[in-house]
Parts: sequence; structure tokens; C-alpha cells
Amino acid sequence: MASPSATDHERPMTDDRSPPSSGADPAGTRDPAARRDRLELPADEMRRLGYRVVDRIVEHLDTLTEQPAIRRGSRNDLEARLRRPLPEDGTDPEQAIEEVVRDVLHHTGQVQHPRFFGFVPSPSNYVGVLADALVAGFNPFAGTWFAGSGPIQVEMVVIDWLRQLCGLPDSAGGLFVSGGSVANLTALAAARHARLGSHDMGLEQARRLVVYLSDQTHSAVPRALRVLGFGDHQLRRLASDDRCRLPLAELAAAVAADRAAGHEPFCVVANAGTTNTGAIDPLPDLARFCRRQNLWLHADGAYGAAAVLSRRGQRLLDGIGEVDSLALDPHKWLFQPFEIGCVLLRERQILRRAFAVHPEYLRDVERGDEEVNLADYGIQLTRSFRALKLYLTFTIFGARAVRAAVERGFDLAEHAESLLRRQACWQILTPAQLAVVTFRYAPPGADPSTLDRLHDEIVDHLVADGTALLTSTVLRRRTVLRLCTINPRTTEADLTLTLTRLQHLAATLLRS
Amino acid sequence: MASPSATDHERPMTDDRSPPSSGADPAGTRDPAARRDRLELPADEMRRLGYRVVDRIVEHLDTLTEQPAIRRGSRNDLEARLRRPLPEDGTDPEQAIEEVVRDVLHHTGQVQHPRFFGFVPSPSNYVGVLADALVAGFNPFAGTWFAGSGPIQVEMVVIDWLRQLCGLPDSAGGLFVSGGSVANLTALAAARHARLGSHDMGLEQARRLVVYLSDQTHSAVPRALRVLGFGDHQLRRLASDDRCRLPLAELAAAVAADRAAGHEPFCVVANAGTTNTGAIDPLPDLARFCRRQNLWLHADGAYGAAAVLSRRGQRLLDGIGEVDSLALDPHKWLFQPFEIGCVLLRERQILRRAFAVHPEYLRDVERGDEEVNLADYGIQLTRSFRALKLYLTFTIFGARAVRAAVERGFDLAEHAESLLRRQACWQILTPAQLAVVTFRYAPPGADPSTLDRLHDEIVDHLVADGTALLTSTVLRRRTVLRLCTINPRTTEADLTLTLTRLQHLAATLLRS
Repeated sequence: MASPSATDHERPMTDDRSPPSSGADPAGTRDPAARRDRLELPADEMRRLGYRVVDRIVEHLDTLTEQPAIRRGSRNDLEARLRRPLPEDGTDPEQAIEEVVRDVLHHTGQVQHPRFFGFVPSPSNYVGVLADALVAGFNPFAGTWFAGSGPIQVEMVVIDWLRQLCGLPDSAGGLFVSGGSVANLTALAAARHARLGSHDMGLEQARRLVVYLSDQTHSAVPRALRVLGFGDHQLRRLASDDRCRLPLAELAAAVAADRAAGHEPFCVVANAGTTNTGAIDPLPDLARFCRRQNLWLHADGAYGAAAVLSRRGQRLLDGIGEVDSLALDPHKWLFQPFEIGCVLLRERQILRRAFAVHPEYLRDVERGDEEVNLADYGIQLTRSFRALKLYLTFTIFGARAVRAAVERGFDLAEHAESLLRRQACWQILTPAQLAVVTFRYAPPGADPSTLDRLHDEIVDHLVADGTALLTSTVLRRRTVLRLCTINPRTTEADLTLTLTRLQHLAATLLRS
Repeated sequence: MASPSATDHERPMTDDRSPPSSGADPAGTRDPAARRDRLELPADEMRRLGYRVVDRIVEHLDTLTEQPAIRRGSRNDLEARLRRPLPEDGTDPEQAIEEVVRDVLHHTGQVQHPRFFGFVPSPSNYVGVLADALVAGFNPFAGTWFAGSGPIQVEMVVIDWLRQLCGLPDSAGGLFVSGGSVANLTALAAARHARLGSHDMGLEQARRLVVYLSDQTHSAVPRALRVLGFGDHQLRRLASDDRCRLPLAELAAAVAADRAAGHEPFCVVANAGTTNTGAIDPLPDLARFCRRQNLWLHADGAYGAAAVLSRRGQRLLDGIGEVDSLALDPHKWLFQPFEIGCVLLRERQILRRAFAVHPEYLRDVERGDEEVNLADYGIQLTRSFRALKLYLTFTIFGARAVRAAVERGFDLAEHAESLLRRQACWQILTPAQLAVVTFRYAPPGADPSTLDRLHDEIVDHLVADGTALLTSTVLRRRTVLRLCTINPRTTEADLTLTLTRLQHLAATLLRS
């Protein structure tokens, strides 16, 4: 090897043109104006502002039950308050934070509120908040082992906890993503790759693939398929049975018909808890059918799969360990702040085969087999450390408490159903299933279309007064109300208050 | 309308089986064990733990320059420290937090460190951290106006600031996503939808579409195309010119050849700042060419587009306002914590046409035209409030300070280049461009392959000692070092220290 002279190559790199050092603070590191130009604040100010933010969060959480469950601003009002040109100059941080809390964060559905029963609530927990704050502050990168070994190790540990809870084999694994939409999309992309055995999605074969789902499947799934490049003609949306489940006989008939027509049946998307009613498709039957038919079985458990943590959930979700892939959202029934979804593959290496790319500027990250690069397993290269909140929640509260919190969701829905059943005018459309109950105000003799409109009006009134939030859905062509009770801080008194208010609204609005 | 009797329909919903109230705390809301089963902590404990987290973050940021720029754990060591079964019981929160800081968060590349020059750093700012903490605590939903009017209004305002900075027309808009990968994917999905005018991706036409990019394009783009269902045969990866840019003449020839062969040229992906060298493709020429040829022009500005904030960046990025779509990552050069990417479309309604879906259980959100549902504009339905951190950063520091911070990135790279040019043994491969400089240790007479290995070893030594982090890349088949200087807290002394260390390592390793 050439041996250059040390004198030339080891002298320090200095810049003769640099201004002479002006004493203790040559680069102006302590000058407030210079600091701002580096987007930097003094430590004492950082601490003070941080405490202020903590105080606002704690105050909010501690008074949540006294606040409206939802506040919706009008576009006009919010435009007037919040539209402004890009500010050239800065402003007082405390004041800016107070304004955001007052004008922005209060104009939302309070998805953690004990009487927010609409859509799927996100009854987060404070330990998850602490974890997200740590992640924001330390800003770890969880894409490659090279730059994120600690976070990736924790993510693998937490993924393995979920894998075991779901009864998936050792070969299974996955990663955390932004939520159910991307979890479903990631799983379906991997499924397609496994089928085609190639990155060449332009193949004629790709256009023949057919995916089966029910009319209760979450819209995230057809949207994901659309993004993946599946044509509408490649989706078979089967009518669900009277318990809102994918009917096996109709599925078998559709698969046979497609084969006969020269299509290639490829994937069944099962619901492991529908958003609409909490219905669970017959997973063991579907698993058997898919194995026999060489079909990929994906389960969308974004809403319901977390219930495996509980005894009742485990029974209901029997067969979930048989699927080829699974989406599961910890920001729903595992009590995490947005955004944390999870995708699990029965064979985790399929994710890697489907997603890995290796550009030159990442060459330094590819040195060891033991060093897992989670960026190779999904869409994102830059990935934050979503796993920490679930890790700390399980670590600090223990699985026992999380399980109790899940069980409580079941109890609350059953309690709500029993309260509704005591009143003759309420009809239960679907009984409490996975903490969802759907029902309709239907006094004898009332006109069904009038009642449809009534339920829309009930929701409008709830939003306006904020006592509680329920949302509506459509079942068997009729508008019904849905109550999703996964918030462990919901009390029986909250349910009574909410249902009493509903009953009053329904009776009053129907009379008027 | 039927008028049911008030006595039947307005009496409160009560449950006779409820246990009698046992005084001040009937539901056991203050009992510590019951609280844990609801994943709840008392306000004073929440406050104490929150302050603790703030203290750890501030301590970390305040001592960053004294810490290693990177720490990488071995898989074996981290498995031993962090692998454990799902804990059934909880543990002390303070202790759990301390362990996470020590064992997990310290085992990462410190992407905010003033001497972290590898890959693309994420030199976040503390105001962004405060915003992320607020978002975690309040857990707002930014998918629909119904449940997230305040956050959506702010997101639209911030998106409009970026739109104006990029010189895009009033019709332009977009949304925040997890990062550059999803921003590129979202834009390309919209581009395809605009071309096909249909959700039917199974069309024969979809398989004929061809996308053009250069060999310097970020791997996120081919990965996104693969996920979208484009076959490898639909990508044309053109060799870049001697300034690492997409060559217009070769592009024109490739498009003409494809048309002649019956393919359908559809989209050009331009780089608005490559990750490798900061090179910017000739945007005005490409815009003219694409207009004439009826091609969609997408710019991947994930790394570089934020530089439009500065005078120099604006000049370099001339033509960026002409693109049809743009990806831009505020978690890079706009100083935000992960994860915030942004996708902007010249015609924002194309996003809506490409992504909107309308399931029954979201019917309550579709009532007013003025009420924007950002979930209709991209892949995610559940979306957190990514916009807040950028909003608060601009509000508290002002655009003036953010601009100064961007300008500093240019200055630092130019300074590093000038330091390197003073030493004969360092060869500049690509001069400072958008805060990236690439260079190689090349003393006269040294064997090129030996030098390739030398640069790998230099990176290994830097990782091991942590003084600074640089990473390598490959340019014109040779291994070179890259310095990405977008951290405004980097000082000239940091550069001198880093380059002196490099020089010492290079000379020593070459001799050994």
C-alpha cells in the first residue's frame, strides 16, 4: 500500500480564513438571536415549555369527562381564526402553545373521551403519550440496524409478543406501520409478491388474480387494492350472511366460478372484527378452505384482533393463528395514541422479498445477517419508533392490566345492550360483539324512512351538544346507531347518561 | 309522525342490577388497582412522569455534542438486554423510562447530532418535539372534518404555505404523510389515476404505461412503483450525466423509442435534490418537455425541495413550481422530528379522485362541501396531526429563522469543501450542492480498489469511535464519502474536528 508522508496527511484541517476566536463563545452559541437562527432554545426555556405542555396534557386528560365528547368548528370560523400567511417573524412560544390548545386541539372529536363511542375510538393511555414524547425528543431512526439497533430490537420484541398472542408460528413476524390502511396494503402487496414470485407486476398473471371479501370489509381494503393496481374487476365483494359474516358456501361458489372462467383466485380477506358490527368471519373454516384452494388468507383485524389478549376475544378469534397475514391496530384496542398499526406475516421473509431495495447510499447498512433492517420489510425507509409506546405500556402496566382493559370493553357493550333491551322502543340490530352494539329507535308503527332520518338527526344533536358521541351506519338498508365501547375509562354511569340522552332525543325529535 | 308516550320514552335508562352507590367513589375511580386496570394514572403521577421525560429529552439535547454521533449495539448484546416474554405484571414507570433511555434510545444514530453527516440527518428542533408531545397527549384525528376540524384547518394552512413557497398555483394542495416513500407513492398513484381516468387498474392500458427516472433517483421511487403494480419492464432508468442529472436528450430518445414500440410514456420522475449528491435535474427543461409530450412530471424533492425557503435554493430549484406533483420531507431540511413527509399536487382534486372511498360507517362525515376530509386525499383513513410541528416551528421561530437555518446548510457544505480542497490528498467528486459534498481520499499513486476498501474501513472506524458519522456511497463505480450538512447546530469547529479525524484515519489506515 502507498505510504503517504505523515506530515502532509495528518496535520489538522483548519481554515486560515476563519475569524479569530473571540473568547469563550466564538461561534456565538449562547447569543439568543444566533440561537434562534439555529432553531435552538436554552435548556431552561426548553424545560419550562416542556413542563407547560405536560401540564396542558394532564389537565386535558384529567378533565376529559367534563368536556364535550366532540367539538366541530365551522370552516368559516376556523378559516377566520387560523388562516394566516407564513409568518416571517416568530412569536412567544407560551402564547402559541395556548392558542393551539384552545383553537385547534379542542376542535376535534375527543377520541379518548369516556363518552366517545363513535367510529372506532382511540382510548389511548398516558404511558403511550410519554413514549411518543420520548420518541419525538430523541428522534430515533428505526429503518436500519446500522442507525437504529436499539429501537429495532425493541420493535422485534414487541412484534413477537403480538405474534405469540395471535398464535402465529415462529416463522411469523412483521412491523409497525402508520395504521390499518397501510398494514392491509403491506400484507396484500406481500401476498401478491408471494403469488407472482416476481417483481414483475406487469405480468399477464397479475391481471387475472382475484381477491374475495365481504360487503362488511373495511374500505381500507378495496382502497389498498386499488393503490396496488388491482382493477375493480379483480374484486369479488360477497354479500354477508345474517350475522354479517363472509358466507363460506358463496365464497366457494365464487372461487369455482372464477376458476372456470379462467381467472386466478388468489386471496381471501377475512374480517377479524368488522368496524360496522364487530362480526368475525369464520376463520377456522376459511383457513381450511384457503389451504385446500391454495389461496392466501389475510385477516383485517385492525379493529378486533387485539381482543386475543382477553379470554372472550381468544374464543371468538379462534383460528386467527391460521392466517397468512394479519393487520392489527394498537391505536385502537391496545390503547395507544395514533399512529400505530401492525402487519404480521406467517412467513415474515415474504415481506423482505416483496419490499427490499438496495441503493448505493445505503450500502453501509448491509453488512451483517444478524442485523435486521426493518426498512426492508415495508414501504417506509425512514421509520420512527412506533413500537416504544406499546412496549412501555405493556412494561409499566403489565399484560394483566391491558387484558382487564380489553375485557372491560366487552362488559360495557353487553351492559349497554342490556340497558337498551329494557326499553321496548329500542331494537337491537346486532348484539354486543367485540365491544360493538348496533341498535335503532323503532317504536311500534313508526315509518322506517322517518326513522332513518331520525337517526341522522340524533347524531347531529349529539355533535352539537357534546354530551356523548355515537355515529350511525347502515345495516340491511336501514340507518342504525353504533356504540363502540373499547374505552376502559367509560363508566356504567357514562352509559346510562348517554342512553338516557339518546332516548330523550329520539322521543323528542320523533314528536317534533 | 308517531307520538309515543313520554312516560315510556323519556324515563332515565337505569340498570336496577347496578350495585348501590358506595359513597364518594362508587365506580372505584380513585382506587389505584382499579385505575391500573383502566390504564390510568393519577394526575400528580402523570405530571411527575411527564416532567421526568422532559428532563431526559432536554438533558439529551443539551449534551448532544458531547455524546457519540452514533452507537450501534450488536444483535447478541441487545437480544440479551431487551428480549423478554410479555410481562404479566407491571413495573415502576420511572425505572422503565430510565432503562429505555439508557438501553434503547442511546443505541441509535443520533440524527440530530451536530456531527451526524451520514445519509440524510434529521436535525429536528425542540418546538417540533413539543408539538409531537401535544399531539400524542390530545390524540387528535385528522382524517375527517367531522372529528378533526381544527387539525385539518391547520394542515390546510401549512400545506398552503409550502405550496406558495414552491410557487405552485392556487389549485395545488396536498397533505402530510409518513415520509418521502409514501409521498412519492401517493403522487404516483394519483398520476396513474389521472392518466387512466378510472379505478380500473386492470386495464390493458395500465400495463403499457412507462415511467422515466435516472440512476440517481431514490430507491423509494422504484419501490413505490413496484407496490403500485408497475412491472420492471415499465421503468426506464436512464444513466445520469456527468453532473448526476437526468439527461434531456436521452430522455427524449427513450420516450420516442417507447412510443414507436407501442408503449405509453406517462410520467417522468425528476430529482429536486438527489440524496447521493444533491444534484437537481433540469426542472424547467423537463417541465417544457413533459408539457409538449403530455407526460406527468413528478419531482422527488424529499431531500432538497425544502431549500426553496432560501435564496440559493430558490435559484437552484427554479422550475419546481411547474411540476405536476412533488414530494417534500419536512423531517429532513425543515427540521422536524420523524415522521412528516408531504405530497403536493398541482391539481389537488386529483388526489381526491384517486383515493376517496365512502363506506357506510363514515356516512356522518359527508355532509358539507366546505368540510375537507383529508382521509379522502391519501392512503390513510386514521391520520394523526403531523402538520402541528411544522406549524408551531414556523409560528414560534418565524420563517426568517427557518430560512437562516436552511442557508446555514449551504454554508457548511461549502466550508467543508473548501477545507477539503486545501489538502491535496482529498479529491472532490461532486462539489457542495444543496448541502451535500462527496469526496474521496486519493493520494497520488494509490490503487483505486484499495481506496474503495479504505473508505469502507473509515466508516467502520467512525461508527466505532462515534466522533462523527459520515457514510459512503458509490459514484462512477468508486466508493466515496458523503457529507450532508443540513444541521444548523453544526459549527465550523465540528467540521474541522470531523475532517481532521477523517484525515488521520485515512492516512493511518492506508499505511497499515
